Amino acid sequence: MIIYGKNTVKEAIVAKRAIYKLFLDEKKTDQKLINFINSNKLSFELVSKHELNTMTDNQNHQGIVADVEPYRYKDLEFLFDGSKKKVLILDQIEDPHNLGAILRSVEATKIDAVILPKNRSVELTATVAKTAVGALEYVNVIQVGNINQTINKLKSNGFWVIGTDMHADKTYKQIDTSVSIAVIIGNEGEGISHLTKQSCDYLVNIPMKGKVNSLNASVAAALILYQIADL
Amino acid sequence: MIIYGKNTVKEAIVAKRAIYKLFLDEKKTDQKLINFINSNKLSFELVSKHELNTMTDNQNHQGIVADVEPYRYKDLEFLFDGSKKKVLILDQIEDPHNLGAILRSVEATKIDAVILPKNRSVELTATVAKTAVGALEYVNVIQVGNINQTINKLKSNGFWVIGTDMHADKTYKQIDTSVSIAVIIGNEGEGISHLTKQSCDYLVNIPMKGKVNSLNASVAAALILYQIADL
Repeated sequence: MIIYGKNTVKEAIVAKRAIYKLFLDEKKTDQKLINFINSNKLSFELVSKHELNTMTDNQNHQGIVADVEPYRYKDLEFLFDGSKKKVLILDQIEDPHNLGAILRSVEATKIDAVILPKNRSVELTATVAKTAVGALEYVNVIQVGNINQTINKLKSNGFWVIGTDMHADKTYKQIDTSVSIAVIIGNEGEGISHLTKQSCDYLVNIPMKGKVNSLNASVAAALILYQIADL
Repeated sequence: MIIYGKNTVKEAIVAKRAIYKLFLDEKKTDQKLINFINSNKLSFELVSKHELNTMTDNQNHQGIVADVEPYRYKDLEFLFDGSKKKVLILDQIEDPHNLGAILRSVEATKIDAVILPKNRSVELTATVAKTAVGALEYVNVIQVGNINQTINKLKSNGFWVIGTDMHADKTYKQIDTSVSIAVIIGNEGEGISHLTKQSCDYLVNIPMKGKVNSLNASVAAALILYQIADL
């Protein structure tokens, strides 16, 4: 797959992702970047800015594009090794920038995994990789067919599944982190679906005291992540 | 100015912003929305989707565009009325989506004001208004010419000014909220400038335990806001 942006490509190199091809802007020779590439024994091709624009569909590539081994999803089963785990479930996050920002927070808090449903959710695209600024290299992303079946599987493996809902009685500060937990963040518009809410062990809210009271999905996720990571 | 999007326009109407003109997509008659407009004794014009696209420069207008009284900046002086205040200073946030997300968090936490420098910072554009989903109606935004002069003014009016920095010894949980405070969030790439850092009373970090360790600016702001709002 194609990825772009200085930090995203650098982090892919550091993380030893297979780099098939590397393209640099012929007019934007960044010596520090070239030294970094050389020290990793990688070769690169100098091409025109126009070619980089075409490869990335006119995204902000910062003069560097790479064709790399695609990001792979992990299996759900690795969560069931018996040790305590903390997991975030994203119920139909549609905005790749939100997913990228969430992956950065997941990486910074070292939460064990992010679970994404296959349907009506963004995939791990170049835009997500770019917005995640390298975090995608170190985050375990699990893709599942059916979110409610996954919740049941988690529960039967000892996880407590917690939904987020404006009208919940508990707050996000009352999440019990002494056990394995999976916290669900709903999508940008509608939150968590009714059926999913019903399968949760309990619900928590994020308190708000304004009039509009709507948080960006990546902000809501970060507040939960920092709470359960106790940071 | 032109604003667009269902919730953004709705919130402008609720907040009694002067609405000069209201345009709806002639093929997307949302009866609930029309009832809401009628109940507020406003008139509207039905136009083609193409016309709405042109007005908004092809943004996601959701079939509703309004020409409204522009958002106005507040004066710094209202912060000096003697009561305890909590303020966020954004040092050159360049991404309008980040600013919009931050304004939502500011509204939800009821922080007293956001201070933006005039130079190299986004203005209160239609994109910011759309991403803020109505929060702009209720947030006090102050625009200042020089951030370091503003910091000095805040300090001489009893504010403690706190910078955010990865290498700080204190964490964001150690911010003293028993006094008036102004917390500075740096820009997406470089953080707070050296000079600005030096004028702070103290610095705090947001702990991270990953390898990449970079948070989205709106995420960093939200963690600080929720901490100082004690929510």
